Amino acid sequence: MKSTILNTGEWLSKPRIVIGIMSGTSLDGVDIAIARFDNNNGKHTFTQLHEYTQEFSRPAFVQFKRLIEEPVTIAEVCDASVFLMQLYQAAIETACQQANISIQEIDAIGIHGQTVWHSPKPHEYIDTQLRSTLQLASGSSLANTLGCTVVSDFRTADVALGGEGAPLVPIFDYHFLKDDSQQTVALNIGGIANVTLLPANASLDSLIAFDTGPGNVWIDATMMYYYGKRYDTNGNTAKAGVLIPQMLEELQALPFIHQAPPKSTGRELFSHENLHFLLNKYMRIARPPEDAVATLTEFTAWSIAHNINTFAPDTQRVIVSGGGARNTFLLDKLSHYSPTTQILTSNDIGISIDAKEALCFAYLTYRTLAGLHSNIPSVTGASKTAVLGSISIP
Amino acid sequence: MKSTILNTGEWLSKPRIVIGIMSGTSLDGVDIAIARFDNNNGKHTFTQLHEYTQEFSRPAFVQFKRLIEEPVTIAEVCDASVFLMQLYQAAIETACQQANISIQEIDAIGIHGQTVWHSPKPHEYIDTQLRSTLQLASGSSLANTLGCTVVSDFRTADVALGGEGAPLVPIFDYHFLKDDSQQTVALNIGGIANVTLLPANASLDSLIAFDTGPGNVWIDATMMYYYGKRYDTNGNTAKAGVLIPQMLEELQALPFIHQAPPKSTGRELFSHENLHFLLNKYMRIARPPEDAVATLTEFTAWSIAHNINTFAPDTQRVIVSGGGARNTFLLDKLSHYSPTTQILTSNDIGISIDAKEALCFAYLTYRTLAGLHSNIPSVTGASKTAVLGSISIP
Repeated sequence: MKSTILNTGEWLSKPRIVIGIMSGTSLDGVDIAIARFDNNNGKHTFTQLHEYTQEFSRPAFVQFKRLIEEPVTIAEVCDASVFLMQLYQAAIETACQQANISIQEIDAIGIHGQTVWHSPKPHEYIDTQLRSTLQLASGSSLANTLGCTVVSDFRTADVALGGEGAPLVPIFDYHFLKDDSQQTVALNIGGIANVTLLPANASLDSLIAFDTGPGNVWIDATMMYYYGKRYDTNGNTAKAGVLIPQMLEELQALPFIHQAPPKSTGRELFSHENLHFLLNKYMRIARPPEDAVATLTEFTAWSIAHNINTFAPDTQRVIVSGGGARNTFLLDKLSHYSPTTQILTSNDIGISIDAKEALCFAYLTYRTLAGLHSNIPSVTGASKTAVLGSISIP
Repeated sequence: MKSTILNTGEWLSKPRIVIGIMSGTSLDGVDIAIARFDNNNGKHTFTQLHEYTQEFSRPAFVQFKRLIEEPVTIAEVCDASVFLMQLYQAAIETACQQANISIQEIDAIGIHGQTVWHSPKPHEYIDTQLRSTLQLASGSSLANTLGCTVVSDFRTADVALGGEGAPLVPIFDYHFLKDDSQQTVALNIGGIANVTLLPANASLDSLIAFDTGPGNVWIDATMMYYYGKRYDTNGNTAKAGVLIPQMLEELQALPFIHQAPPKSTGRELFSHENLHFLLNKYMRIARPPEDAVATLTEFTAWSIAHNINTFAPDTQRVIVSGGGARNTFLLDKLSHYSPTTQILTSNDIGISIDAKEALCFAYLTYRTLAGLHSNIPSVTGASKTAVLGSISIP
């Protein structure tokens, strides 16, 4: 039964300016994308109008981290969510000002919220089993203080339907990165690296997407540990290092890399603890620290390429987004391990590498207000598709 | 600017079956009302189809109480909200079965959620001031497991706009209890007693609603303390007691009772501590416990009547709902103190005394999906009206 609650025909009848807001699990801040979406007989197109990143203040970072790690009062949970909405609002106002767009021109805002809990596997609670996820946010609060329609809470529906609640980007990849004439892989290199396989003839309901292994997580942590830097600019440190063959070999043997999809991983496997175990083992003898960075970069590139070569062997082009797309040395290495594949960044096709996730949530918002489903059961494991999110109208 | 997101014309074009669910701050369970709403050129009517109450299990009660009173992990907060949705779902399924209505016939469900935090006054958080309220719920989860549109989070919008987020019942009272030919007061006797003043010529934007003082809170607590009973059936215990004049006098001097509206109170003033202070003072000499119940019942009736007589002196009828409407002795006393006023229960006009709040949330849901505002700034103090809640579509 098609829902008649939404005025979907009206929504799709003209171009819509939508803002997407992502705040990632790394708690570093808020990414905003402003885009205009249009519909042409069911074919969606978009133009990115602006992107903006607002870092969290130190007290905000500390507070969100505390919320995730320690017991807190319910007052703090509630206050943190309204506080985040104030941050979102200030960031939206700055972004709109920079883009010379007034809030009145914005048709809707899609907010991811701050993930503070994600447990999509059934677990016991009181006398029952349940699955749960929490992206802290308050759509109703933001909608009313800004005076704009807000869609929030995108992951809950998929989790309620038995899915992982993630990844939600594949629908965006399918509509905007797939090419009918060539086999494509959409690769996002964040903390973890993940791919959406987009064969030329891919159908939405059999789409495959999975994590390949680490993205920047171990490279960044090693840079911080040895150099006090947040990342390896252009991969220059890795480039100056020499590979540690035994360390690379040990990493290449990790079962996760070889496991067939569907698969997903997190910071449990690619944790600081496991990294420091490795560094203790291989860096105890006096080696220059760049050797560790070189080896981890090599492993990261190799693990991505190995997954693509094994599970999508005919790939003609890889479109890279995320912070890792800026590590040119990492991309060179990826090219080295997938020599017949063209490696592009999403910038090359008009999708900012930093704003892609925020753009994706803008697109999910566009779809929700059009009454369209956005989760892909073959990707998330949900029992069916769903119109994602909750809609708050001012 | 009128929102075009919702298909409001379609929504209002035919009768809608809506479920309202209330779980009160007393943590005793879930009240469900099923009603059919209809629209006739902007005049709304409804028929109550069914009502059902599901008590919380002891472990559920304990867990929600813990959440309110102690620091907890964010996992517990998230799990409690999904757990509550499972409770709601089971209760909805039972209620629909009893009413012989299938879930497919339900047009929408409005859920109040469990209030675990309510602080609408500006308070400090990190480096800012904010107001916040949390009615624990997950609309998106329930919408998808049930396959029905859900509206949730009704109070946040009003709080975001600077209001108290309460009371929200006056819009219901205005549409369904107001009478053009007589001055009416809608009185709800829950833990606290509150009134909506409905002069025959009342206009929505100047409506007045306020708390008069205690409802059942002290009577119930005294029944539990002396008799281990949850309430005084028909007021029989009070009827058997003798007034304690000094105690009544002390209570009648409480400044809150005499304060002019707008005013609201909670369990801070009418707390167990303050009650036990009174009981210690007046029950130390050996008196039968029914004297305390008699005096508290007298005070409760007097405080309601005093407020009506003072702030709505021409009232012709009072329509009583809430658990207190079942205390016939209390209503007799109310009649004694307001001798020229007709005292009815809402049952008498076709609105179940127990289901009124749940019915109200069904009506708020009907209004939200019609794109209509429901908070009343003259009542809540908000800077403007708002379409309340967040909408989750399966």
